[in-house]
Amino acid sequence: MIPVRGIPEVREGDDLAALVAGAAELEDGDVVVVAHKVVSKAEGRVVRLGELEPSQLAERIAASDGRDARQVEVVLREAARVVRMRPPLVIAETRHGFVCASAGVDASNAPEPDALVLLPLDPDASAERIRAGLRARTGRDVGVIVSDSFGRAWRQGTTDVAIGAAGVTVLLDLDGQRDRAGYELHATLIAVADEIAGAAELVMGKLDGVPAAIVRGLELAGPGGARELVMPAERDLFR
Amino acid sequence: MIPVRGIPEVREGDDLAALVAGAAELEDGDVVVVAHKVVSKAEGRVVRLGELEPSQLAERIAASDGRDARQVEVVLREAARVVRMRPPLVIAETRHGFVCASAGVDASNAPEPDALVLLPLDPDASAERIRAGLRARTGRDVGVIVSDSFGRAWRQGTTDVAIGAAGVTVLLDLDGQRDRAGYELHATLIAVADEIAGAAELVMGKLDGVPAAIVRGLELAGPGGARELVMPAERDLFR
Repeated sequence: MIPVRGIPEVREGDDLAALVAGAAELEDGDVVVVAHKVVSKAEGRVVRLGELEPSQLAERIAASDGRDARQVEVVLREAARVVRMRPPLVIAETRHGFVCASAGVDASNAPEPDALVLLPLDPDASAERIRAGLRARTGRDVGVIVSDSFGRAWRQGTTDVAIGAAGVTVLLDLDGQRDRAGYELHATLIAVADEIAGAAELVMGKLDGVPAAIVRGLELAGPGGARELVMPAERDLFR
Repeated sequence: MIPVRGIPEVREGDDLAALVAGAAELEDGDVVVVAHKVVSKAEGRVVRLGELEPSQLAERIAASDGRDARQVEVVLREAARVVRMRPPLVIAETRHGFVCASAGVDASNAPEPDALVLLPLDPDASAERIRAGLRARTGRDVGVIVSDSFGRAWRQGTTDVAIGAAGVTVLLDLDGQRDRAGYELHATLIAVADEIAGAAELVMGKLDGVPAAIVRGLELAGPGGARELVMPAERDLFR
């Protein structure tokens, strides 16, 4: 786990692959984890509160805890479905199928005090673009994960998970393989992309302006696609 | 992330600290992650199916998918509360407050084909015992995490999480600290123990008999206590 230091404050239109390539020595097989916050900023997925008018629903939710109704409005617009609501907390399903607090809308590390950062529109495509850019600039074949901090049902605290992935295995399927005792493993699907994102968080931190990290030595090259991490509705016991 | 290789098949009564100390060079500040499977085996938390009689409920659940009713019986006995049931899947809350598949009961890597491995009775105490044993044998002050593979609501695949912890920070609280833009972080609680457990899984694997790993360089010494990872009932939106 290697933090990528020296990446400047990211602005809309910035070339993240160029910034990472300039700040790190990559090796083939590395997995580069990039915090979605900088991906979203580079892609212009930022909303200024001054630009919008809150709905009545947003006003009502915000009134219960004195929050800015325009912040709530952004969350509702980003939500495909509200899963649970206990103001100020809104747990929502995003357009991508991810279930997370505030539909992924976040005020921390925003470019301006009055701005909110949204999730990328297509984080898998974002990861693929960064991967292609890194290959073009460094010649290295790396995996890329776009990460975000998600809460979990029943457990305290957030862990970083993969919301976008390219060139790396997302789910490692051990089905049919045997353990040391000869027991055949069933339904053993490991969300390695989430574990990689969490490992990277340990060296990125939230405070010190390290928006990317390299996880080296895993041998987990693969097709990517964090959309595979979304539990299909028909198998979801918690919809 | 350093896999600890060369640990033999663990049996009831084995001294795990001695086995780890004999297989790895520890440094102060290391976090040693031990798969709960070997902790449970060393502590004798294993049930032989021949020893028990299934209840009618277990018979009924098992009938729906042709499973051994005694396996279901073990799950029901380990469950403090059934959270969701769609046979063959039983999501249950354990005595510790963890919510997971089959109340943590697992048939893979069991010591015998007819045996099931249960969770340790008190995984925090297990972690503390291993930590004390490692200190006595090596003189090193390390953190210890006992890990298990948990599924997650809404996401596919399992990630390893901490079910026991000693000498390591479990939840890193950034509340009141400021990000690079000066924005004060609220309710930013990072479940670092879960991220460490997941990172360790990446080098432990399920198949190759590596039941422990060292995560080095984190500077996350702390009091431990994975019970802090359980969401208190009054704040739990998903009970």
